[in-house]
Amino acid sequence: MILLPGERLDDLGRGGLKIIQKEDGFAFGADSVLLAHFVTVRPGERAIDLGTGTAVIPLLLSALTRAREILGVEIEGPVAERAARSVSLNRLEGRLSIREMDLREAPAVLGHGGFDVVTANPPYRPVGSGKISPDRGRALARHEIACTLDEVVRAAAALVKFGGRVAMVHLSGRLPDVLGALRANRLEPKRLRMVYPYPGRTANLTLVEAVKGGRPHLEVLEPLYVRNESGAYSRELKNIYGEE
Amino acid sequence: MILLPGERLDDLGRGGLKIIQKEDGFAFGADSVLLAHFVTVRPGERAIDLGTGTAVIPLLLSALTRAREILGVEIEGPVAERAARSVSLNRLEGRLSIREMDLREAPAVLGHGGFDVVTANPPYRPVGSGKISPDRGRALARHEIACTLDEVVRAAAALVKFGGRVAMVHLSGRLPDVLGALRANRLEPKRLRMVYPYPGRTANLTLVEAVKGGRPHLEVLEPLYVRNESGAYSRELKNIYGEE
Repeated sequence: MILLPGERLDDLGRGGLKIIQKEDGFAFGADSVLLAHFVTVRPGERAIDLGTGTAVIPLLLSALTRAREILGVEIEGPVAERAARSVSLNRLEGRLSIREMDLREAPAVLGHGGFDVVTANPPYRPVGSGKISPDRGRALARHEIACTLDEVVRAAAALVKFGGRVAMVHLSGRLPDVLGALRANRLEPKRLRMVYPYPGRTANLTLVEAVKGGRPHLEVLEPLYVRNESGAYSRELKNIYGEE
Repeated sequence: MILLPGERLDDLGRGGLKIIQKEDGFAFGADSVLLAHFVTVRPGERAIDLGTGTAVIPLLLSALTRAREILGVEIEGPVAERAARSVSLNRLEGRLSIREMDLREAPAVLGHGGFDVVTANPPYRPVGSGKISPDRGRALARHEIACTLDEVVRAAAALVKFGGRVAMVHLSGRLPDVLGALRANRLEPKRLRMVYPYPGRTANLTLVEAVKGGRPHLEVLEPLYVRNESGAYSRELKNIYGEE
């Protein structure tokens, strides 16, 4: 059996894709799913996901796009090893690969400008804001312990080719940080979508796609609502989760 | 009669307010009306509107808020004079005043940190993008001829007190420019609202309020729709225009 003790197998709801997750550790969230559906990936392109965790973004991109090659980079050995088993489990070794690596070192190891697309769902909270989880996986995924926003964006900017895309999901409360970090690295924000938990509330997440060396003009897409007024998942979310 | 040849009198739809506009020149737009409804002004505060044009924002703020004093600054003599007549016409000389002034010189003339709130509906387009209107009023209102975005923000940052607010409306396509200019001047973006012409379309405008020296955290409010699916004004717009 491909599962280790304390792991469980979940269905990604797309083309029969399965994902291995820890029963009591960090599980992928809707933010990664939304990012995988948001990012522009064209047929034949080469993509990389920074801080890939369970590899949920590479797995979804394998089903949603015709990317030629998708690389996932993860700093934590056991997490990277688990992600690699999910790749094997889905028989995606030909297109997907997982590398145990500090994303800050990825440009030096993988080369500059070799990717058409970079995705990242980075840790959302600066160290010092809120309680740090005793679970190492959760802590690294939530707080800027292993890397800051600026470090993620700097690595993305180095990995992506000129004219290529960098797509991120982050807290809407940090939108100025995200746009500022992108621009500081010659990544011009081109597409933005705000994510709202319900209609009539404030947003909680923001999806942003930037183009390396792009001409300044931001397209602000229609809002994405996770749930509708009645509290049920919106039609768009159901489509994203493959339930309709 | 208070009107000069080529002028007309329009109803602002709030408490019987009237505004004098040129029949064939630049008329105030929905963007200014939305900004006047968006900005936070507390009772007793002192506000200034940069590049006030017809004084639509000061006039609306006089009805919508309990500001103690509202100043409008306008570079074009005939436009400032017309705005001053609108103030007189509404018998608001006690609270509203108009000054003919280059907004870039306003901090030197009016002092630093003397205002609780600064509003601005600046020209949206850099010189070189699109045709410049032969009408001087229209040209100055649309293109960054008399001042750039950075100059407007710098003036606003100098005029506002520490902890005070700067609110702007701008093209959503230039959101990264707006947030970047604010932060570069110690104005922390705190409230953001995207304006959509219709549901399901991309946004065209963005409303932003920043706080001088504020703690970083942006609240992204629910989207504002100008029209609903059927093409009629939305209920919120009708409320704003006082039609309901």
